[in-house]
Amino acid sequence: MSTYGGIDLGGTKIQAAIVDEDSNVLGSARRLTPTAGGPPDVAAEMETALRDAAMAAEVDAASLAGVGVGSPGTIADGNVRSARNLPDWQGTFPLAATLAHALGCPVKVGNDVQVATDAEFKLGAGRLYRSLLGVFWGTGVGGGLILDGKPWIGRGGAGEIGHVVVEIDGARCTCGRRGCMEAYAGRAAMELHVRQLHEQKGRKTELFKLMREQGRERLTSGVWARALERGDKLAVQTLDRAVGALGAGIASAINVLDVEGVIIGGGLGVRLGHPYAKRIAEAMQPHLFADERPPHVHVAALGDLGGAVGASLLIRDGA
Amino acid sequence: MSTYGGIDLGGTKIQAAIVDEDSNVLGSARRLTPTAGGPPDVAAEMETALRDAAMAAEVDAASLAGVGVGSPGTIADGNVRSARNLPDWQGTFPLAATLAHALGCPVKVGNDVQVATDAEFKLGAGRLYRSLLGVFWGTGVGGGLILDGKPWIGRGGAGEIGHVVVEIDGARCTCGRRGCMEAYAGRAAMELHVRQLHEQKGRKTELFKLMREQGRERLTSGVWARALERGDKLAVQTLDRAVGALGAGIASAINVLDVEGVIIGGGLGVRLGHPYAKRIAEAMQPHLFADERPPHVHVAALGDLGGAVGASLLIRDGA
Repeated sequence: MSTYGGIDLGGTKIQAAIVDEDSNVLGSARRLTPTAGGPPDVAAEMETALRDAAMAAEVDAASLAGVGVGSPGTIADGNVRSARNLPDWQGTFPLAATLAHALGCPVKVGNDVQVATDAEFKLGAGRLYRSLLGVFWGTGVGGGLILDGKPWIGRGGAGEIGHVVVEIDGARCTCGRRGCMEAYAGRAAMELHVRQLHEQKGRKTELFKLMREQGRERLTSGVWARALERGDKLAVQTLDRAVGALGAGIASAINVLDVEGVIIGGGLGVRLGHPYAKRIAEAMQPHLFADERPPHVHVAALGDLGGAVGASLLIRDGA
Repeated sequence: MSTYGGIDLGGTKIQAAIVDEDSNVLGSARRLTPTAGGPPDVAAEMETALRDAAMAAEVDAASLAGVGVGSPGTIADGNVRSARNLPDWQGTFPLAATLAHALGCPVKVGNDVQVATDAEFKLGAGRLYRSLLGVFWGTGVGGGLILDGKPWIGRGGAGEIGHVVVEIDGARCTCGRRGCMEAYAGRAAMELHVRQLHEQKGRKTELFKLMREQGRERLTSGVWARALERGDKLAVQTLDRAVGALGAGIASAINVLDVEGVIIGGGLGVRLGHPYAKRIAEAMQPHLFADERPPHVHVAALGDLGGAVGASLLIRDGA
């Protein structure tokens, strides 16, 4: 029986897991993503995380059938280019080759969002479907596609659901463009929006107080969830606006693709959970062309280790 | 060597062709689509058109390997449901069975826009690509997809590019929803828009005068083209708005799908031709996430008989 490694490389943390052929987790570990240095330093932390997970699973890294990696940025042949949220990673770095050399086993690198979509399709909330759209609602809004049982990546850049236009000449997006869905729904954009209204227009909100109380420097999913629980008016309005944008943008993708299922994941998606998945489905409804048979909308079912477990499928399934 | 029939069932005309195995046209015919009656009357005209084409090709309809039909509406198992632009066709009609019985050969029915996309992929402007989006810019804006060499229809309703949202709570679409791309770019919506501005707000335009001069009751593609040539200000502004919507909506689809090519067809698309395909490509550019490698944008290459020839591929290629 083979064992596999999986690493989820995020902007905040690196998560590693060792799994068996049925994707049962035999051991796991996490490290903080370095905020300084460069790609080699990040790769070194990834190696450590994987070795820690292997130690927990009582296997030798070199004995693994291979290690799969879910990474941000543009991926081609194991090389990772312009991974925006990672330190000094504008250029191209041979991540697969570096890790394979360090660990002594084969390494494959895939796009983090596509890996997570694939994991939900094979093991999670998308198990019932042949075709689905994964929407990862967090700092940004990423997307992944499974069409007829297989990942669809187009020319390598498919799934950018966050940059579907919901308003021509609309709000400025963190990508520099205007009117993208992410400009209304991404956590980074929402934070900019409420900060402006709070600091420049004097709109009242408890968001920043809650942030400080929780010892955070950003409006995390937890901070948003707390503010919503308390009925903070600015938080509620900003989330309404986000849900409206998600509804229009996801419905647009469904009108073009007509897939069976939509999986809502990501930090905000998972944290806000079923009530918000339901709200997003309701916000999609007025924009769906085939509104008599909307797609099924679910929250991502795999937990914190979903990304790492999903990455291991790159090896197990040779995708 | 087998011969095939193809019928393009449009809201205005029925076009039929007889082709050989290489899709060379051996004979063709056209009839006006009945504006009264019901599905059986339309089927009877389709039979006549196909028989006329067969006569021109000097073949017997019953000797054809089969006849393919591109039809509006929702298609399932040869039945056509709610074909909006055809007379009294709200319910379901067994079009394939009716024609097969009348003609004495096998008949397959496909979605008109998907058939036209497939034809451009196999024989026309999409020949160079494995994956493409067909955008049929006419009365409405329809879309068809080829992904990795095969038509993608989702659960049967994919390709509704016209109903991608470009403006939340935006202009009212002829489908009843708000902010759809078609609400800005479809010929029917553009006509409503200029009629309102002309009749209710007193905006000057030569569009309706040109329409009458050309003996038309609608602002046809030809009327629009003529008004643009003359620099009619309202026509120019309305087309600018349409091109802006097409740019945003098509770019949204590309951000999700990342296909190689976009084919602009349809009455307006073909009539306005290359200069407008170029303008649409330019309008897409600010919304493309991977803006360093935009998809190729072409005008549909198959002429007036493209739909009928494309429909014949339903039989030849068993699709």
